Amino acid sequence: MRKEFRDLLDPEEAAALVRGLDIDGGTETVSLTEARGRILAERVDAAIDVPGFDRASVDGYAVRARDTFGAGEADPATLELAGTVHAGEEPTVTVDPETAVEISTGAVLPPGADAVVMVERTATEDEEVAVRTAVAPGDGIMVAGADVSAGERALGPGTRLTPREIALLSALGVEDVPVRQGPKVGIVSTGDELVRPGAALDSDSGQIFDVNSYTITTSVEEAGGEAVLYPHVGDDFDALESQLKGAAEECDLVLSSGSTSAGAVDVIYQIIEEQGELLCHGVGVKPGKPMLIGELGGAAYVGLPGYPVSALMTFRKFVAPVIQDAAGEPDTGATTLDGAMAVTERYREGRLRLMPVGVVKDGDGNTLVYPVDKGSGATTSLADADGIVEVPPDVEQLDAGDPVSVELFSEDIRPPSILGMGEDDPLLSRLLDRLDRPRYLPLGSREGVRRLREGIADVAVTAGPTDHEVETVELGNWSREWGLVVPSGNPENVSAVEDLVDGDLRFVNRDRQSGLRQSLEAALEETAESRGVAVTELFEQIDGFDLTTRGSESPPRRVLAGKADVALGLGTTATKLDLGFVSLGDQQVRVLAASDRTSKPGVQQLEGLLPPADELVSDLDGFEI
Amino acid sequence: MRKEFRDLLDPEEAAALVRGLDIDGGTETVSLTEARGRILAERVDAAIDVPGFDRASVDGYAVRARDTFGAGEADPATLELAGTVHAGEEPTVTVDPETAVEISTGAVLPPGADAVVMVERTATEDEEVAVRTAVAPGDGIMVAGADVSAGERALGPGTRLTPREIALLSALGVEDVPVRQGPKVGIVSTGDELVRPGAALDSDSGQIFDVNSYTITTSVEEAGGEAVLYPHVGDDFDALESQLKGAAEECDLVLSSGSTSAGAVDVIYQIIEEQGELLCHGVGVKPGKPMLIGELGGAAYVGLPGYPVSALMTFRKFVAPVIQDAAGEPDTGATTLDGAMAVTERYREGRLRLMPVGVVKDGDGNTLVYPVDKGSGATTSLADADGIVEVPPDVEQLDAGDPVSVELFSEDIRPPSILGMGEDDPLLSRLLDRLDRPRYLPLGSREGVRRLREGIADVAVTAGPTDHEVETVELGNWSREWGLVVPSGNPENVSAVEDLVDGDLRFVNRDRQSGLRQSLEAALEETAESRGVAVTELFEQIDGFDLTTRGSESPPRRVLAGKADVALGLGTTATKLDLGFVSLGDQQVRVLAASDRTSKPGVQQLEGLLPPADELVSDLDGFEI
Repeated sequence: MRKEFRDLLDPEEAAALVRGLDIDGGTETVSLTEARGRILAERVDAAIDVPGFDRASVDGYAVRARDTFGAGEADPATLELAGTVHAGEEPTVTVDPETAVEISTGAVLPPGADAVVMVERTATEDEEVAVRTAVAPGDGIMVAGADVSAGERALGPGTRLTPREIALLSALGVEDVPVRQGPKVGIVSTGDELVRPGAALDSDSGQIFDVNSYTITTSVEEAGGEAVLYPHVGDDFDALESQLKGAAEECDLVLSSGSTSAGAVDVIYQIIEEQGELLCHGVGVKPGKPMLIGELGGAAYVGLPGYPVSALMTFRKFVAPVIQDAAGEPDTGATTLDGAMAVTERYREGRLRLMPVGVVKDGDGNTLVYPVDKGSGATTSLADADGIVEVPPDVEQLDAGDPVSVELFSEDIRPPSILGMGEDDPLLSRLLDRLDRPRYLPLGSREGVRRLREGIADVAVTAGPTDHEVETVELGNWSREWGLVVPSGNPENVSAVEDLVDGDLRFVNRDRQSGLRQSLEAALEETAESRGVAVTELFEQIDGFDLTTRGSESPPRRVLAGKADVALGLGTTATKLDLGFVSLGDQQVRVLAASDRTSKPGVQQLEGLLPPADELVSDLDGFEI
Repeated sequence: MRKEFRDLLDPEEAAALVRGLDIDGGTETVSLTEARGRILAERVDAAIDVPGFDRASVDGYAVRARDTFGAGEADPATLELAGTVHAGEEPTVTVDPETAVEISTGAVLPPGADAVVMVERTATEDEEVAVRTAVAPGDGIMVAGADVSAGERALGPGTRLTPREIALLSALGVEDVPVRQGPKVGIVSTGDELVRPGAALDSDSGQIFDVNSYTITTSVEEAGGEAVLYPHVGDDFDALESQLKGAAEECDLVLSSGSTSAGAVDVIYQIIEEQGELLCHGVGVKPGKPMLIGELGGAAYVGLPGYPVSALMTFRKFVAPVIQDAAGEPDTGATTLDGAMAVTERYREGRLRLMPVGVVKDGDGNTLVYPVDKGSGATTSLADADGIVEVPPDVEQLDAGDPVSVELFSEDIRPPSILGMGEDDPLLSRLLDRLDRPRYLPLGSREGVRRLREGIADVAVTAGPTDHEVETVELGNWSREWGLVVPSGNPENVSAVEDLVDGDLRFVNRDRQSGLRQSLEAALEETAESRGVAVTELFEQIDGFDLTTRGSESPPRRVLAGKADVALGLGTTATKLDLGFVSLGDQQVRVLAASDRTSKPGVQQLEGLLPPADELVSDLDGFEI
């Protein structure tokens, strides 16, 4: 029976349920060299005075202050030199009246002395010291305990140990430090179709790489927990049950990251309900609806949704704060950035929406916020996002311009120096490597121009005959050879675009947003005209014309895998993949900046790397970036 | 010959010199599970489509969209059930016209199908599926490469790998990741008087704990370098020379942290000048003047000043940025906090001043900035500081209220929830443990009141008969027993304050800021009155009356060490240290809040922990915090 999530728990109640789970971490003792970044478990009081003795704070002469009274440049006090004290040695001389002892910075003040005259205000001759200034008792001395004194509360519990605290602990001679230990968090990943990264993938069988295991493992570590990643099990009931029960015995908290197949969710649901206690199944949040909260064998249990973006966002919202708290991490609050919505977004679910967003500065330095979402099955949306906007359940629409507050993923996140969108191009990829903190979304030429027109993108990159009705500044351009990518040796003797229409070839096309597709359609348009037929007729005759993929290498790689005879692609891609290539011409790649964004540092940096807009350069001409 | 630092280099020129040193780090390959927080060394392009196949994005039935045209709630399309495809298996059925195949989310779309109808819009009976909605081609499907497509620039060089990037790399099946390796930085600590934390300390010989070694080691790690801490050597020329040359062979950068004795500085100076190249000796910055910059045996060399605060601030200002850069750490810029000076400060050195400061919010939420400085020999000032204000060489004075920008030590620093100053008290230390992010500076009762009056402290804690002329709100109070701490068994039979005056006792007093000292002076005042003499006469008769220390345990610990016969202290301290105690009475500890700071969360939190102000509680009454 499929589990349906009908009675969704209020997100705040779900958060309270997770907070109520018992996942305390412990304490451990680490050496000072391993203590950086850890959280102090107990107060440390000073057990000694620092310094532990009255010490000279300058190089000079230890004296009795009263012996210098009245001394000056013109009328120095002359004292007998009675000896020397260096740092790190016990004084063997006493400062008697009318005598002085040479002393180094940091050395123990010898008995009898109550001040140190700095060497610059003295002169020595034979065994006499001329003191050319009067000093008061205490001058040139750091008294014992002046830095830290015994009994002082040096550091409180919950303090994060940075080099500054390590300096203090070093000064106190503390070598072993009691620190908080994060809770032990077991990660159980399920799903027959998942393969751990690094292993061989069989896409034909619907296998995909396991994203959640490493992502949740590192997220647990980031939150301060001790992560235990268990070996992958499929959806088999017995194997999963034994895995979950074993994890519950060893850990404070068990997280399962469900497979996307409903089967695994059902199995886990059943195991927790039978063997433990299920406190919640389903939360009114998007993404994150199919979250489970419960207990199993004395451990806390949270079942994360299967989709990686859902799993990570659910983890961040509900689980990370509890791990942080159990690990003693100070709650410094979320780092937020205020901005305005760049576009209008509708929400109809009546659930709390966790919306991943990117941020970009407009030409006036205002922060614009745009949603980043590749759909519910996407694994990678968050790598292009800067943070989350929480949209309450009762908000049905956010209009462009509406103020929103972005909870940044981390404190060191800054808006990108340049936000580009448009065509996927190998030379462009190399150019981007030379910029500081660029962001580029390869959405295709047409989508890039659309986003630039919407005021989101700083820069759009187009290829081929892409029309646009938006005022832009062309920063530069280059040309690239496009055509048909075929197996090595061109076994089907493909020679022209007409072969796609007339031959018996399995073709792989690009998506309609891409400049390559535009160039292909333009070429077919010419063929249609010369044949006196509608171009759509030709489209229909091409086997696979509607079989589109997004990336510049996706179609050629299908040829490489033997799944197609011919693919739309670039000459450079064919060369890279050792495939054959039938050139259909050159197309120009243009870098277009929004006219109000040309002074952004990243835009200027990119412009500086590009050949001038009026100088056409081919990427095959040896134009080295 | 002592090295004098006469021709000081401009700080910006010194920074440029350090930047010019060659300390490149390398790259290494780590597994994805170890990659968190590391910096990507090279661009990662997608070599596969994600997903690698057209997949169902909902649970339901794979169909040919045209078979559902016209279908609705009232008029479902009836299709023959041809089979099932689960996630992780290769379809064995084809969707022929007028048929449907049951499909799980994530499963491979079977041949023939071009859409998936979600299960909620269907009904099954026997071998037939009633489809109650029309779908378009592509509905319910995530096409191959929709998430990431082959050839796409997935992550650029210099990207920090957080769980979000690890998700993307997992999805691409990348297991080994090329990451930046920090430069190898050797730390050589010198100085005959230094003892590593954990070892036994001989204060009589002027030994102090080595603060710089662990502090600089962890600072190097924090900056992204690989730190190598060499065994401690003294000031011996040959040992130091061999240590430095060995470190230069093994490391990209060698840092020496000088002892405070002039001897060690001279020795290092000589070694670098003879064996390598000295590019700079002395920089116009305070602290940090005696900094050395040079090269030794192919490695870069920087000699840090000996005083820990100077060493750490010099490291942060000049060395850390270069290590961060060599380690590929993204330059996100310093995190700054703008505020106003809380007090007036004068600067006369004509050098760039790096002023460690604390920050505090006043009652209106404004940020006040106050200098934190315990003097040039202090090791611990920075643990009480939040950041640095750079004061240019030509600024001679900052007035209270002047705007300043604080460069915070790290991004997660927040102003303390409460800033208290005043008496050192054991019960207070326990109370502070229960607050979130408190800061308390045990400056003594009088200094606490003074700082509260200046508008810096939120709360002052006083003990004994401390007068104050400032409007405050008393949050609560307790009493503590004070008196004379003597060796266990009270061998000198001390019984009253008069014994200090009349007996032959070596006494250790507290400083004039402390409430304990005020109570002692009041008691002596009574004695003086009864004897008809001036109290100062009595002061002079006490051996050690001017020998003062700051902490509550400092004087008793001198008795414990056999260095004094009697000390001013608390009953609780005597009990803790197993010493004898002669009570001279109770004194009240009062927690006083500035009247405009009572609504600060930390102040309210403290008030909630305290017994009411009108209820006198003794810390010996079993008042448990």
